[in-house]
Amino acid sequence: MAKSALQIARAAYQPKLPKAFKGGVALKEGKATESVANQAEIKELFPNTYGMPVVTFEEAAAKLSMGDFNVGVILSGGQAPGGHNVISGLFDGIKSMNKNGKLYGFLGGPSGLIDHQYMEITDKVTDAKTQIDINEYRNTGGFDIIGSGRTKLEETAQFDKGIEICNKLGIKALVIIGGDDSNTNACVLAEYYLQKKTGIQVIGCPKTIDGDLKNSQIETSFGFDTACKVYSEVIGNIMRDANSAKKYWHFIKLMGRSASHIALECALQTQPNICIVSEEVEQKKMTLSQIVNSIADAVAARAAQGNNFGVVLIPEGLIEFIPEMNVLIKELNDLLAVESDVKAAVAKLSANSKSVYESLPEAIAKQLTLERDPHGNVQVSLIETEKLLIEMVKTRLAAMKAEGKYVGKFSGLGHFFGYEGRCAAPSNFDADYCYSLGYNAANLIASGKSGYMSLIKNTTKSSDQWIAAGVPITMMMNMEKRHGAMKPVIRKALVELDGAPFKELEKNRAEWAINTCFVYPGPIQYFGPSEVCDLPTKTLALEQAAK
Amino acid sequence: MAKSALQIARAAYQPKLPKAFKGGVALKEGKATESVANQAEIKELFPNTYGMPVVTFEEAAAKLSMGDFNVGVILSGGQAPGGHNVISGLFDGIKSMNKNGKLYGFLGGPSGLIDHQYMEITDKVTDAKTQIDINEYRNTGGFDIIGSGRTKLEETAQFDKGIEICNKLGIKALVIIGGDDSNTNACVLAEYYLQKKTGIQVIGCPKTIDGDLKNSQIETSFGFDTACKVYSEVIGNIMRDANSAKKYWHFIKLMGRSASHIALECALQTQPNICIVSEEVEQKKMTLSQIVNSIADAVAARAAQGNNFGVVLIPEGLIEFIPEMNVLIKELNDLLAVESDVKAAVAKLSANSKSVYESLPEAIAKQLTLERDPHGNVQVSLIETEKLLIEMVKTRLAAMKAEGKYVGKFSGLGHFFGYEGRCAAPSNFDADYCYSLGYNAANLIASGKSGYMSLIKNTTKSSDQWIAAGVPITMMMNMEKRHGAMKPVIRKALVELDGAPFKELEKNRAEWAINTCFVYPGPIQYFGPSEVCDLPTKTLALEQAAK
Repeated sequence: MAKSALQIARAAYQPKLPKAFKGGVALKEGKATESVANQAEIKELFPNTYGMPVVTFEEAAAKLSMGDFNVGVILSGGQAPGGHNVISGLFDGIKSMNKNGKLYGFLGGPSGLIDHQYMEITDKVTDAKTQIDINEYRNTGGFDIIGSGRTKLEETAQFDKGIEICNKLGIKALVIIGGDDSNTNACVLAEYYLQKKTGIQVIGCPKTIDGDLKNSQIETSFGFDTACKVYSEVIGNIMRDANSAKKYWHFIKLMGRSASHIALECALQTQPNICIVSEEVEQKKMTLSQIVNSIADAVAARAAQGNNFGVVLIPEGLIEFIPEMNVLIKELNDLLAVESDVKAAVAKLSANSKSVYESLPEAIAKQLTLERDPHGNVQVSLIETEKLLIEMVKTRLAAMKAEGKYVGKFSGLGHFFGYEGRCAAPSNFDADYCYSLGYNAANLIASGKSGYMSLIKNTTKSSDQWIAAGVPITMMMNMEKRHGAMKPVIRKALVELDGAPFKELEKNRAEWAINTCFVYPGPIQYFGPSEVCDLPTKTLALEQAAK
Repeated sequence: MAKSALQIARAAYQPKLPKAFKGGVALKEGKATESVANQAEIKELFPNTYGMPVVTFEEAAAKLSMGDFNVGVILSGGQAPGGHNVISGLFDGIKSMNKNGKLYGFLGGPSGLIDHQYMEITDKVTDAKTQIDINEYRNTGGFDIIGSGRTKLEETAQFDKGIEICNKLGIKALVIIGGDDSNTNACVLAEYYLQKKTGIQVIGCPKTIDGDLKNSQIETSFGFDTACKVYSEVIGNIMRDANSAKKYWHFIKLMGRSASHIALECALQTQPNICIVSEEVEQKKMTLSQIVNSIADAVAARAAQGNNFGVVLIPEGLIEFIPEMNVLIKELNDLLAVESDVKAAVAKLSANSKSVYESLPEAIAKQLTLERDPHGNVQVSLIETEKLLIEMVKTRLAAMKAEGKYVGKFSGLGHFFGYEGRCAAPSNFDADYCYSLGYNAANLIASGKSGYMSLIKNTTKSSDQWIAAGVPITMMMNMEKRHGAMKPVIRKALVELDGAPFKELEKNRAEWAINTCFVYPGPIQYFGPSEVCDLPTKTLALEQAAK
């Protein structure tokens, strides 16, 4: 396949590893652990994987050795920059301990394990039909090496199909690279394989650009760094354009359905006039008109200074975090399930929902009622929140103008960024971090661990100070209601309003709203000075500094 | 103002200059020139600026000297990466010849000259209200240093207002940085100032990301390189996502109303499945359904191989290049001017236009009839061509499925990139090229030239082989009909179907359509190996190689 000049140059990059992996290594075990909540329930569900110690790798005289077996790897869920480096770190880690150990990649996500679709990942391809050259994928973005998928590993029938193929291929360990749900399922699988005494270990790796897989153990999920830097690059470019043309308000929606970490991080990197944080909207029970009015007020205040331009960041999931919109959507789902006539359904809305519905621009109201999924539900992800807000701010400003409270011109442009960042080539941070996660996973396997997540800590320091660790996945679990039933899950990390990143936004946003404080981060650099190329995200730096 | 790490590091970059400007320099004059067409008319309109020779600067013993006067600079039209470097090159060029020479920037585009709005550009700010620090803007994107505007310099009353302020500020030369129209107007201004014996010289600089300001003299306009690289970065990222998720067709619209150079260049950099070129559509008189069907055929062919994903590039101006759409829009403009009822107007469309209108998805048909500008005209720029094509391809595929000609899933996602690239920090190429254009403009001024465009040639070679030149703007002119009257203008360079860049697309597109040949260029690099950082555009490389 044809390659860009950057791909060719970047292939030669040797990702950095924690010091522990530079020579020999020894495993150090900590104390027994407990889950973050619901200890009794979790312990009962995970008798074999509960309570295990946190482990760390330390420098020692000799390398670990690995039994003569093979390893399988699975990519699960949405793409995140660095997935290929987890796999190349895993590959190199295995080979460093066992030259004969093979790495198999299951194709298209967890379904590859169930359906027995796989390829060997190697650096010596002799048959392109069954083998993939790992060297083609080092330091590249994307999950195209083996593909990903959203099949959930939840049923014992699936687990048993996994045993079949592992036995056939001599696989004694699986590495599952995924988000919170995939890591929860990795632990369920580990538990099952231990109960069944299959001898198959399972290790998880923390992936997601959304940044919502983090806790006292996980400092950051991989991909968040790169994705936020790509979004901040284009946001910064749009800001410079806004500040040059001085005639548009850009409303930029950013990927991230359930958490606003991406929007918040991009705001800290670029200093927009406004950044909406869904978690704040929900917690303060803000209404749609409160949000619209606060934007309109900023537009008017800037217009009063002659600045008819600005930038607003909007998290993708906002709509569902606005309590009254959430109620409206639920009512519509219920009504439209039994009533095909939209007008009749709307007539039956509660008084408050009806008034919210009637405040919506026509095109958005249509999206709410006409575009339903096969189950008859409103397709919230199709709602163009950025256009909704532009229309409503326009209407609000017209009213303010009539009242003499606004003098200016308002012209809004909408953008949505998501797919631009999920498969970018990993930043130095993600390249090193992911490679280390994979290399570390190989060492956890060699140490006989299962039900562990591969973790790297101390990530705001230079990589030789990074700590390679393994944390029992059960330690991060609690019980939550999912589809009506209580399930053990890793708690999703939403933006905390008393956390350092949000406080940083809160401290500055009044000034950013009125003045033009834009910062232009520019594109990710791979070769330049360290202070440019190796910066962690503001979120990570602030959170670690606050510890 | 707060700065990103990259901005701080990049500020120290010293842009490269042609060898001629490293030491002393001498002006070499060529033969008398003629305009590219309509010689008699152009000569009559430009008695003082017609027929002047092309000039080049060559290495010599001594530097040029500059009289003790000041210079003014104007940014005109849409933003393009590198504008700040033209100004910093101009500033350094002036100072290298006359330490006392001041540079004034007129604010907000040509209107700043007319309305006498200006700031001094200096490296020693003593009064922030009247002075701008040039060092804050070196190697940065945007036009925010002095702002830009779209006021056209066409009337003698405007020119006279310019004389007033130039006399007041001791300005003996103006540099106008703009596209084809702005450079035409720069020449009209130069001619007027010569006729009036004002002693004010006027020099133009070739700017536009659209790439349509080029000819036998101009190799490329500045900003095209950087903008196309930014768009190619995000297109490549989306491609890698498409190839990883394997479930979406991405329809990506790219800025460029009148020419498809941007879409074509991005296609050559990234190898999408399909790239539509407006000029081909117009020349081959393609219909909307031909375009839709050809996309649907590629979708079906890829689906037959199990690939339900792909990428389509669409030039922003496409709609107006489809002959039947152009006719429809004209008919609607005429009908809606006298008929406010949309249905009644549609009923009066010609048979062919009516059938085209009826083939459009409802939302697009609405945009065509409801969203009109203050003159009652259809707002073509608001038409979401990417969504139009997705909807129509979906409809076509449903028909093909019914006929048994298509088996697969089609899910389309639309994107529009434009504002992301216009103000990006200039690539090394644009940083060097723009700085050289500005430095060269100072030397043209010192040589007493007026009605010239500052040009750098031999741009695919390393910068020490670049040739610094001045070309009479009249040489690039012909007469064209504008708003009903014949006007002298610089001919706009559209994509030529027998040009090397288009031929390269043509040679490869059958393969790119069916197979996945994506290339992932990644972000612009400023510090890495030269083969990564200093690549010219494919368009420029192919065109120069073909010469």
